[in-house]
Amino acid sequence: MRKRKGAEEHLEHHPQYVILNPEDAKGKWYEVFGNDNPIHIEVGSGKGAFITGMAVQNPDINYIGIDIQLSVLSYALDKVLDSGATNVKLLRVDGSSLTNYFADAEVDMMYLNFSDPWPKTKHEKRRLTYKSFLDTYKQILPEHGEIHFKTDNRGLFEYSLASFSQYGMTLKQVWLDLHASNFEGNVMTEYEAKFSSKGQVIYRVEAIFN
Amino acid sequence: MRKRKGAEEHLEHHPQYVILNPEDAKGKWYEVFGNDNPIHIEVGSGKGAFITGMAVQNPDINYIGIDIQLSVLSYALDKVLDSGATNVKLLRVDGSSLTNYFADAEVDMMYLNFSDPWPKTKHEKRRLTYKSFLDTYKQILPEHGEIHFKTDNRGLFEYSLASFSQYGMTLKQVWLDLHASNFEGNVMTEYEAKFSSKGQVIYRVEAIFN
Repeated sequence: MRKRKGAEEHLEHHPQYVILNPEDAKGKWYEVFGNDNPIHIEVGSGKGAFITGMAVQNPDINYIGIDIQLSVLSYALDKVLDSGATNVKLLRVDGSSLTNYFADAEVDMMYLNFSDPWPKTKHEKRRLTYKSFLDTYKQILPEHGEIHFKTDNRGLFEYSLASFSQYGMTLKQVWLDLHASNFEGNVMTEYEAKFSSKGQVIYRVEAIFN
Repeated sequence: MRKRKGAEEHLEHHPQYVILNPEDAKGKWYEVFGNDNPIHIEVGSGKGAFITGMAVQNPDINYIGIDIQLSVLSYALDKVLDSGATNVKLLRVDGSSLTNYFADAEVDMMYLNFSDPWPKTKHEKRRLTYKSFLDTYKQILPEHGEIHFKTDNRGLFEYSLASFSQYGMTLKQVWLDLHASNFEGNVMTEYEAKFSSKGQVIYRVEAIFN
């Protein structure tokens, strides 16, 4: 992804959508949103098509898109602004540091979409479904909290099913070709729209912490 | 599958390979095989390519192919006879009745290959990965016993991953395109050879009882 000129300023000019001091929001996200609605986060929200689409589809849920990349997040901001949704915020932090920004059980549900596959074994620890990340997610989710994960990457999906299971999570449901299934209300990411149109199958799983 | 004329007589003429009174073998399979080698069973062994191929590949393991269909089992017998393998037996019983023929923990490992998908929800209980079957398998396997399952049927594989997980089993490893992976020593079933040659992906999982 090429750097976008002025991305940082763009983000800073919209503090209503981009949370600039997220440490201060920890334990107080209901204040940030101004209501008590459930909070769903997407770790690795990219250009924001998913999180914005979900926010529009479900106005009674609060969404937070999280990405560490400045330029990418600035494009997500464009989508949020275009949508007019007021129930979505953006956060530029790292997926491994979520406990700095969310209190225990403050997040009701989590999405991972088309995460970087890090295919080399030596990079296993960077995969967002590696056990150290699961530790973090478990802490900020409620008891029996859920992760909804989709990807077109076969290796990452194979890895993640085993990783969830070996962590002690339960697989609630698995889709091995999401777009051929009768799953309703799917909101596509930019990546998903592009690769599924080329015939790539999309995998999906809902996994529950025990 | 068309009925094979003389199938029953064919089976009865080879008591060395086809166990005709399997109740008597319960707890004494080491006597049937004449050694203490580990026992691996395949439930739904069909025409026997897998169980016979495995027996030839692994002479220090004892294999038992189990199928309820007479004609199919008689073709498996042909394969066993052709192979010359002495470490494989055939059993004509139902998958739900295995505890009648195997003592607790008498079976070291279990294979399910291309089981009938029973795609209608009302037939869920007939799927060989339904929880009542898992109860049976758990009883005849040792602690942390394993099931190795492969299929080309997407719906059955999706169902089975969730069923294993919800039963409390752990997924050790998952393959979403077995033939494109670096899995070594795969022995194909008749069905697998036919459908993979048509471009169908083959799914595989190794799941462990806890």
